[in-house]
Amino acid sequence: LPGRKVLIVYAHQEPKSLNGSLKSVAVEELSKQGCSVTVSDLYAMQFEPRATRNDIVGCLHNSEMFNYGVETREAYKRRELSSDLLEEQKKVQEADLLIFQFPLYWFSMPAIMKGWMDRVLVEGFAYQFPDCYNSGLLKNKLALFSFTTGGSQETYTKGGISGDIRYLLWPMQHGIMHFCGVKVLAPHICFAPEYVSEEERKEMLLAWAQRLKTLWKEEPIDCSPEWYFK
Amino acid sequence: LPGRKVLIVYAHQEPKSLNGSLKSVAVEELSKQGCSVTVSDLYAMQFEPRATRNDIVGCLHNSEMFNYGVETREAYKRRELSSDLLEEQKKVQEADLLIFQFPLYWFSMPAIMKGWMDRVLVEGFAYQFPDCYNSGLLKNKLALFSFTTGGSQETYTKGGISGDIRYLLWPMQHGIMHFCGVKVLAPHICFAPEYVSEEERKEMLLAWAQRLKTLWKEEPIDCSPEWYFK
Repeated sequence: LPGRKVLIVYAHQEPKSLNGSLKSVAVEELSKQGCSVTVSDLYAMQFEPRATRNDIVGCLHNSEMFNYGVETREAYKRRELSSDLLEEQKKVQEADLLIFQFPLYWFSMPAIMKGWMDRVLVEGFAYQFPDCYNSGLLKNKLALFSFTTGGSQETYTKGGISGDIRYLLWPMQHGIMHFCGVKVLAPHICFAPEYVSEEERKEMLLAWAQRLKTLWKEEPIDCSPEWYFK
Repeated sequence: LPGRKVLIVYAHQEPKSLNGSLKSVAVEELSKQGCSVTVSDLYAMQFEPRATRNDIVGCLHNSEMFNYGVETREAYKRRELSSDLLEEQKKVQEADLLIFQFPLYWFSMPAIMKGWMDRVLVEGFAYQFPDCYNSGLLKNKLALFSFTTGGSQETYTKGGISGDIRYLLWPMQHGIMHFCGVKVLAPHICFAPEYVSEEERKEMLLAWAQRLKTLWKEEPIDCSPEWYFK
């Protein structure tokens, strides 16, 4: 939609990978719609995933006993978070839609992207007790997890060895995005692209481009236990 | 048990934290039993969480198109993984029990520990298709997730806002440890230590020490969907 802002948080080492192509397809299609698209290319940025004292500029609130949650909350108030975090927060603040594009690593996102969640979504910025879940501070934004898997779709079913794919979406969609008040669109999953033909990988890219054409008309999922575990 | 080897993978920035104390209690109690205990103190080691080309020493299998899974699998065969990974793999190989000690960050482990999983548990070392889950290469080992939460126990129940705590254990216990063939002991969870009295925190440490006394007699959980979602 013209005027809409999209942030793509992207975690793949190889631009020529399917993840790289999925990211490019999204930039292209959404730009064509008139959206303004920003990409945080985490590996290219050498984004820091470790939550440490370096995230706070200047003095600590309590230098006797380092508590990352407390220190980043206080540093956020004082505008004393490290500049890489402030930049990411600015991108999030401006975005109407966050797309997370990554290969599934161990039933979750790669560590570099988990580090983005751990460090960027600071208390006071993304949530503020009791303002979490439906009243989280990032309400009125949308998020979409777009990822590739190693295993096939059959393994990720209720009777399959890896269980329903929705089981592993719970921490990411509910525990992170919903917690911050963000509404979650259905995930976009490309199963086992390494084991399909070049032709099928092209179809995966086309399907993503196609979905993006009508993305703004989609309703968020009902991000409750029923969606995940029934 | 005398002679048993334990690896504690520990992720907290502050030695004086409850996580730091829980780690120390485990070292002390298990050593007293005659176990040989090794600690990987991830923040102190400045452990690298990012999965990159730097993990492969020397030439790539395919330098045209970087695929982290393929490259680390091939580098493992050639003994050309970076030395920090080889060291961690040696510790895992020797261990009878892996204890993961961390504060829960966003329904999961901190990025620095996720990076340990992403980088250390290489194909060929931890699993080798079709040898995964019950036939994973790390079978005959045990794992235990020991962590602290921000939220109270009531929030982590079926009717609670954050859902049953077991839901978020699925990716870590089943998706990672069980996938590698490791048997999983019941998690050890200290709920909301920041919101209880000093006295109650001491009781948490005592309870952990107490549990460790009979840990080797425990039966692993049945790491199947029923345990997590029924």
